[in-house]
Amino acid sequence: MKEIRCIAFDADDTLWHNEELFCQTEERFKQLLAKYHSREWISQQLYETEEKNLLHFGYGIKGFTLSMIETAIQLTEGRIQGEEIQQIIDFARDMLHQPVRLLQHVEETVVRLSQSHNLMVITKGDLFDQEAKIARSGLAEYFCRVEIVTKKDEAVYQKILHKHEIAPRHFLMVGNSLKSDILPVLAIGARAVYIPYHTTWEHEAVEGHDARKLIEMKHIGRLPELF
Amino acid sequence: MKEIRCIAFDADDTLWHNEELFCQTEERFKQLLAKYHSREWISQQLYETEEKNLLHFGYGIKGFTLSMIETAIQLTEGRIQGEEIQQIIDFARDMLHQPVRLLQHVEETVVRLSQSHNLMVITKGDLFDQEAKIARSGLAEYFCRVEIVTKKDEAVYQKILHKHEIAPRHFLMVGNSLKSDILPVLAIGARAVYIPYHTTWEHEAVEGHDARKLIEMKHIGRLPELF
Repeated sequence: MKEIRCIAFDADDTLWHNEELFCQTEERFKQLLAKYHSREWISQQLYETEEKNLLHFGYGIKGFTLSMIETAIQLTEGRIQGEEIQQIIDFARDMLHQPVRLLQHVEETVVRLSQSHNLMVITKGDLFDQEAKIARSGLAEYFCRVEIVTKKDEAVYQKILHKHEIAPRHFLMVGNSLKSDILPVLAIGARAVYIPYHTTWEHEAVEGHDARKLIEMKHIGRLPELF
Repeated sequence: MKEIRCIAFDADDTLWHNEELFCQTEERFKQLLAKYHSREWISQQLYETEEKNLLHFGYGIKGFTLSMIETAIQLTEGRIQGEEIQQIIDFARDMLHQPVRLLQHVEETVVRLSQSHNLMVITKGDLFDQEAKIARSGLAEYFCRVEIVTKKDEAVYQKILHKHEIAPRHFLMVGNSLKSDILPVLAIGARAVYIPYHTTWEHEAVEGHDARKLIEMKHIGRLPELF
């Protein structure tokens, strides 16, 4: 790890809690529609609508909200009331105003590593949401670069490394998604540290990866021990 | 203009048509709600909801769609039907799938200037929408940098110039918005060319600018004459 000069972090569920906010909102959504359908059926329909809409709307709170509204209309065959849909829009506004809750050990780890390495954030999602979260996190000053992208695959990582003139052997990515943070980074010859979050969104789950190449940690606080 | 090395273009309504797509969708929205209210009242309410929601949702089709849904609920006091709201979501999907229509003279101008200058796109809006439009425009290969930002003020332009090591005197911005493309660029000592689009969104209109510092053109095809 002596060669590493630049450490990049995923943001959602690596630096701060995110997925639980979506889970909490899904709970509120299921409660709102409880009089129409079972919880399981609502979950399944919402997941299917989200998958279909990802192509059109991308990631983030606004796309998720449009998917909730569409699911509510379909599940009730149009019987959903205007004021119930207004509640769904209010869920979105609540989500956007939630304080950014850092994961345990994040703050001290980022501060410490920023003294020895160039730190970067590479995150997927909605530009508006992500910029607001980075600003509110209190960590912005420790990162020399922030890259907000619509997907994270080998080509995207290669482009970022090329743009900042970083050789793969000098680059380490830290994140909670095998699919987005780890596998494409290993594939281009850089290093990656996998720190699972307790909830992993179904869309992000992958199977059959080569466990030998992985560095896995329980929490981000152990990261400095690598160096 | 001999000093100019980098020319940056705004995208929406500078390189391709955008505002007319929002206007057409607003027309469809007014038709949908025609049985509830007058056209003028619907327009005014939608504008007010948009203004209020910009802070929460930012720019782009998804935020606009959430504002249409919210306006529809308010204007009908919740009487709006589920299937009518579904139609509003379908408007969004239609907008996202519209082909990118370049403005007149854009293609030949961009191709020509790319041979003598570094070209950049600096655009506001939703990351997902804007990346998709740049990819579909057929112009991506002519731009060395694409910057998608949440707002365009002096600080944002300064940051971009700093990042790419461009001195203000070497930089020229081309766009259709005095507020976003022209005034902040002139303020940091760079140059700017204003090419009005036939429709300017109310939110972008400004008054009382100093007309003497402006270079204004009827269409982008006249840009190469500057050099």
